[in-house]
Amino acid sequence: MAEFGKIVVFGTGLIGGSFALALKEAGAVEEVVGFGRTPSTLRIAQELGVIDRAGINPAHEINDADIVLVATPVAQMPEIFERIAPYLGPTTIVTDGGSTKGDVVGAARAAFKGHIGKFVPAHPIAGAENSGPGAARGDLYRGKKVVVTPLPENNDERLDRIKRAWSLCGADIYELTPEMHDRVFAAVSHLPHLLSYALVHDLAVRENADLFFTFAASGFRDFTRIAASHPEMWRDICLANREALLDELDSYRAQLDDLRVALAGGDGERLEEIFDIARQARRRWAGEN
Amino acid sequence: MAEFGKIVVFGTGLIGGSFALALKEAGAVEEVVGFGRTPSTLRIAQELGVIDRAGINPAHEINDADIVLVATPVAQMPEIFERIAPYLGPTTIVTDGGSTKGDVVGAARAAFKGHIGKFVPAHPIAGAENSGPGAARGDLYRGKKVVVTPLPENNDERLDRIKRAWSLCGADIYELTPEMHDRVFAAVSHLPHLLSYALVHDLAVRENADLFFTFAASGFRDFTRIAASHPEMWRDICLANREALLDELDSYRAQLDDLRVALAGGDGERLEEIFDIARQARRRWAGEN
Repeated sequence: MAEFGKIVVFGTGLIGGSFALALKEAGAVEEVVGFGRTPSTLRIAQELGVIDRAGINPAHEINDADIVLVATPVAQMPEIFERIAPYLGPTTIVTDGGSTKGDVVGAARAAFKGHIGKFVPAHPIAGAENSGPGAARGDLYRGKKVVVTPLPENNDERLDRIKRAWSLCGADIYELTPEMHDRVFAAVSHLPHLLSYALVHDLAVRENADLFFTFAASGFRDFTRIAASHPEMWRDICLANREALLDELDSYRAQLDDLRVALAGGDGERLEEIFDIARQARRRWAGEN
Repeated sequence: MAEFGKIVVFGTGLIGGSFALALKEAGAVEEVVGFGRTPSTLRIAQELGVIDRAGINPAHEINDADIVLVATPVAQMPEIFERIAPYLGPTTIVTDGGSTKGDVVGAARAAFKGHIGKFVPAHPIAGAENSGPGAARGDLYRGKKVVVTPLPENNDERLDRIKRAWSLCGADIYELTPEMHDRVFAAVSHLPHLLSYALVHDLAVRENADLFFTFAASGFRDFTRIAASHPEMWRDICLANREALLDELDSYRAQLDDLRVALAGGDGERLEEIFDIARQARRRWAGEN
């Protein structure tokens, strides 16, 4: 008998589909049922073996599920939580794959109320270059980080079950509070996206934008790669993590103020100090990652 | 007989050494004489065939040179211009490989005075990941851009000779005024470096910096790759192009102010608009570059 019985996945694309495939390949799940926005996506997911069958009605699928993974865009999660809340069974644990946690936890609390202990939030750190069931891979999470952000209401058993499922996917498990998670990801992910979009936009709206782009080279290419990310998804992430992102943006603006003072004053020593600290940190990080 | 007689190169590393090698491989130069800061570097450059011999005294080498390429860090150029100014011969054209132009032109004017017409500034756009004579490659400039920034005092013949030399290296030649050059490169190169350094520094000086770096992933990797660049070199570039860089920094700060307003006000429509314009521009650029 497999370690997990039925798993229900909302969103059968890169994040949810890869979770399902990984557990199937580990022989750790008996059945995977998928929910999605369009029947055609679910049909493809089933043809690819990502799910065993498409779910029709949450009322018939949630109660006997061991894990319900909500792996849709964060903006769709509140509605899904509301839809499944009435049907949580005795062994059901709900988790998610959202890249922000404060807002997801808030929506889960509103929907699950006294059953919030059954919701164990998580954030698998895996690329998002591709999407849809075709992008799902059983080895996506191998050696990747998954951040679990337990709630005070989660008991050890439920927390361990979710960590175990991600471990079976080959992931390295980390724990942070939802608040610290959001601060960290605002700083190392959401802010860089905002800054990269801002640079390209600032150039793109100029009358002579073409002249500028003509001479953009490899440094520009690296710096702006994330400005090709999906605008709707990043709008949602920025809004979902607004408070932490505003804090990080303000910290960064203060840093730019310092740099401006050094630059305007011709303070080469200060500039070099900032650049040197940054380079050392970047190199140390690159050596370890 | 080769198209160029003697070429003198100050700085026999990636930029100057590759120029020399490319012209040699094209059979376009009779002799390459190198000047450098250390005898050992020049010895290596000679052993690698980058230069034919090391120069000892500019007084004996400049007068009969066809092209003098000053390919040192920009900060060293004023002194070199002063050293060679007394010896410019009737056919001598001086050019440079500096990544800023306003300051280099200023130094050249101060040194060459009435002979400023013999100085044709240029900026070859080639990576700077490696340095030293060992990094020089005859094909470095093939298909790369070289921006020539002519002065009003340059006559057509001298301008054409420098453009011809770079063409023989396989480069695509562009012309900009020195002022426009500096604005464009402030925007697409110098500012991104400043912004990338700023982000990493802002994280690196935190007490819990390690926690943040632990969760930095591929977007962070791309965005901060240029923060591993050489601090001294980028200090010099930032200071050399200070005025244009301050303008670009202020334009960018205004852009961040706009984004902050949209974010704080929950204006998803505006955020998505900015992200979408940026993504379209970035994708168009990537498709063409």
